Formats: sequence, structure tokens, C-alpha cells
Amino acid sequence: MNLHSRHQIAPDSDVRLDDLDPGATPGATREEGEQALPDLNEKLGRLVQELWADQRFALLVVLQGMDASGKDGTVRKVFSGVNPLGCRVFSFKRPTPEESGHDFLWRVHARCPRRGEVVVFNRSHYEDVGIVRVHDLVPRKVWSARFEQINDFEKLLHASGTRILKFFLHISRAEQKQRLLERIHDPLKAWKMELGDIEERAHWPAYMKAYSEAISRCSTRHAPWYIVPADKKWYRNLIVAQAIIHELQSLQLRPPPPHFDPAAVRVPD
Amino acid sequence: MNLHSRHQIAPDSDVRLDDLDPGATPGATREEGEQALPDLNEKLGRLVQELWADQRFALLVVLQGMDASGKDGTVRKVFSGVNPLGCRVFSFKRPTPEESGHDFLWRVHARCPRRGEVVVFNRSHYEDVGIVRVHDLVPRKVWSARFEQINDFEKLLHASGTRILKFFLHISRAEQKQRLLERIHDPLKAWKMELGDIEERAHWPAYMKAYSEAISRCSTRHAPWYIVPADKKWYRNLIVAQAIIHELQSLQLRPPPPHFDPAAVRVPD
Repeated sequence: MNLHSRHQIAPDSDVRLDDLDPGATPGATREEGEQALPDLNEKLGRLVQELWADQRFALLVVLQGMDASGKDGTVRKVFSGVNPLGCRVFSFKRPTPEESGHDFLWRVHARCPRRGEVVVFNRSHYEDVGIVRVHDLVPRKVWSARFEQINDFEKLLHASGTRILKFFLHISRAEQKQRLLERIHDPLKAWKMELGDIEERAHWPAYMKAYSEAISRCSTRHAPWYIVPADKKWYRNLIVAQAIIHELQSLQLRPPPPHFDPAAVRVPD
Repeated sequence: MNLHSRHQIAPDSDVRLDDLDPGATPGATREEGEQALPDLNEKLGRLVQELWADQRFALLVVLQGMDASGKDGTVRKVFSGVNPLGCRVFSFKRPTPEESGHDFLWRVHARCPRRGEVVVFNRSHYEDVGIVRVHDLVPRKVWSARFEQINDFEKLLHASGTRILKFFLHISRAEQKQRLLERIHDPLKAWKMELGDIEERAHWPAYMKAYSEAISRCSTRHAPWYIVPADKKWYRNLIVAQAIIHELQSLQLRPPPPHFDPAAVRVPD
């Protein structure tokens, strides 16, 4: 069951998020998806160990999506079999004054994985062609140059061994409403909510337009985008896990040989 | 079933590791221990979310033990229900030249958790009264002053809201031999082994003496040591998980109130 490839966006596509159904679950039933996950967790745990041992490649996973699209939940569910030691997660917030003093890729570059490591970006440099564009935080001339800058940057990472997978968690407006309402009434989540998150819904069409263009322009062979139907959490988890596992398996990871001949080593009492 | 407290070392004790059985499992059977763990994982996952929401306290978990005592495995098994975003793990290796240019607590301090966060140290500043002492890397006068320096440092952390739990994973020499043999023949682990790890076994009594003193001198009310019988992995996981959960529960964590009245918020379609 390899379903992720049907959600990968081919280079030079012209995708429109509005044409894609966030509630779709092609190729799997809920039962199949939920049953498959524990195995995928375990497989991923082992592959991440092998990535570390192999020391030739790094893995960068980028998660984007509207508020409540499930970015945190994806990290929790997909990476739950992975040793926290082998996997770092960064959440990018509004840039600090120091970060704003640099080019938009500076803070991102600083947090990229070294060889052997997995890093997950919860939001990323795609905010700089997303919210930045929707709210006119920089002139069109500046953000429109960024697609090429992003492609060049990701090409650099790829050339030094970093494999990059980018997932847009695509939820519907109705599903977002439902999840925001749940947050408002959950004391563990309400304290960190800003009512601005709700007002952002007014900009939904502008976000869909911005992300449609970013995904179309920046889904490349070396750093593909996936648009993941994410109204159903079990399907979202399944697709993200399958895509990551497939990528790691394609690397044919193998640990370097030991510094000694295992057959010749004795451990004294 | 609260078993951890019987393994906590009272302040001003004079413990000898040699007197404590690494294979002991007082108070639980393997079946009970293994059945309890998934619930403890889930409980810990929730408490770590509450710690973050509460924003008054931080948690620092220190893991020490001989090679193959299960430090990595403890992280994997105890924290498997925790969002990697809420928990960072640091492994302290041989100090870099930059680190050696500073006092021994400098690199440790830099990696301590901020309020709301959990950090796990895989090895720690206790190496500076462990391997450093066993191999005469600094004069006795220098390492013997460190017990007090450590206590003062940990008191500082505690005063600013950091709760500190320190676990010595106590395995027997025979169990270590068994685990080293397994590593030698596991390609995923053999590549990173140094045969020096096996030679270190010759210093076993010196390590037991050094750690016995460090634990006796540095188990304080504000930063207690636990000596965890660790030959049985299931028992080790149970004790570490219980101790952490008990500490977090004692903090009576509660999320701050939301910035709004949940009953009054509407989410427009």
C-alpha cells in the first residue's frame, strides 16, 4: 500500500488547492490506515537509526498548513517510534529583531539537519511567501523573488546530502472551524490561542492562492511538495509516514563497518 | 504502585553501589511493569503539555550509568508518548577545545531547560567527577571541589523553577558483558563502538567508588539521586517513569486562563 505518491506534486505543475478535496482518503479505509500506523512508526524508528549510522544523508521534513491543520499532531503521531535524540523539531514563529535583520533564509539555514540527523520544521521559510504575502509585509517584488531563492537554497541542501520532503496539510474551512471550537473549550489549548487566529479565517482565499503558487513554483525533483488531504487525521498520518519511509528506504542506508572484527573480540569477565 | 521512592537516596547518605543489587525488582513483577508502561507514557505526555502551558517550572532529567546501562533505551521507552517538540535530549561527549576552555559547568548550563521545557541529559556534569576522576584527568584538588560546586549550581537552577531528577542506571558487570557482546554483533550498533569501551571494564571498581561518592555527596532535597536497579529493563523504565510523573504531579500544574471568555467566542463560517 503505497499511497503517498499520488499526492506528490510534479515539478512545473499548476495546482490549485481549491480543486483538491481535503476530506478525500483515496486508496485506504480508516481501519486499514489505523492498523498500518504502529508498523510504520516502528519502521521509521529503525530507519532513523540507520540514517544516523550511515552518516551520508540528512532528512528535512517541512510541515505547512493553516492553523489547526494538524502540524503538531503529525509530529506526535508519525514520529512516536523515533528516539527524541535522533529527531529535532523547530517551530518558526514571528521573526525576532535579530532574525529580521538577516535575509529570510538565515534562521532556517541555521536549523537545518547535519548529516545523519532528522529535523522537522513546524512552519518554515514558506511563511515568507505565505503570511508575508497575504498581509503585505514586504513588497511584491521582494516576495516574488523568493520562489527562486528557495529553490536555489533547497538545491544547495540537497547537493550536500539533505533529502527534503514538504507536506502541505490541507484542511477544509469547515474542519478548521470545528477544531478551533474544540481548542477554545480545551483549557490545555485555550491559553495559547489568540483571537487573531480566528480573524485570519477572513483571509482564507488569499492563503489558498499564496500556497497554491508556492507549491506550484517550489515542488522540484530535489525537494517535492505533497498536498496531503488532512481533514481525516488517520489518512494524513498514513500519507506522511509512507512518504518519509519510502524516501529513507530509497537511500539504501547501511551502517559503516565496525572498527574491529566482531568474531575476534572477547569481553573479559 | 509508587515504587520509585524506595530508590531515592536521602541527603547525607553514605551509599555504596556494591551493596545494591542491580537485578532487584522490589514491588513489581515483570508482567505488572510491562502492563503499566503504556499508561505511564500517556500520563507523562499529558503532564509535559501541562508543564509547557503552566510556564512556571522546567524539568531536568539526568541519566548516568556505565556503558550499556540503558541510557538511550530509557529515553526511548519512557518518553515515547511525549511530543518531541516538548522534550530535548543532549548527549555530552568528550569536551571540545572550546568547552574545555571554560569551567566544567559552562556547557551544561548552556543546555539547561527554559521554563515550560523538559531536557534530558544523557551523561552530564557528573562525568566530571566520574571518568575524570577515574582517569586522573584533573588533580584531586580540582575534582574534589566539584561536589560543592555542583550542589550550588543545582540549587541555582532549582531556585529559578527547574526541578531536577538524577538517575543512576545501575547494572551488573555480568549484564554489561552480555549487552556489549550483543552490540558487537549488531551491525547497527557495532560501527560506533570503540574497543576502549571494553577496556574500561578494568576500571569498574574505580567507577563504582567514584559514583558512590558523587551520589552520596550530591543527592540533595532540591536535586535527588535515584539509584535504579537496571539489569531488568522493564523495572528501570517503571521506576524512572514513576519518579518523573510523581514530581510533575506534585507541581499542581495548571494552564493559565485564556485571553478571552470561551463562552463568548464565535467562529464565523
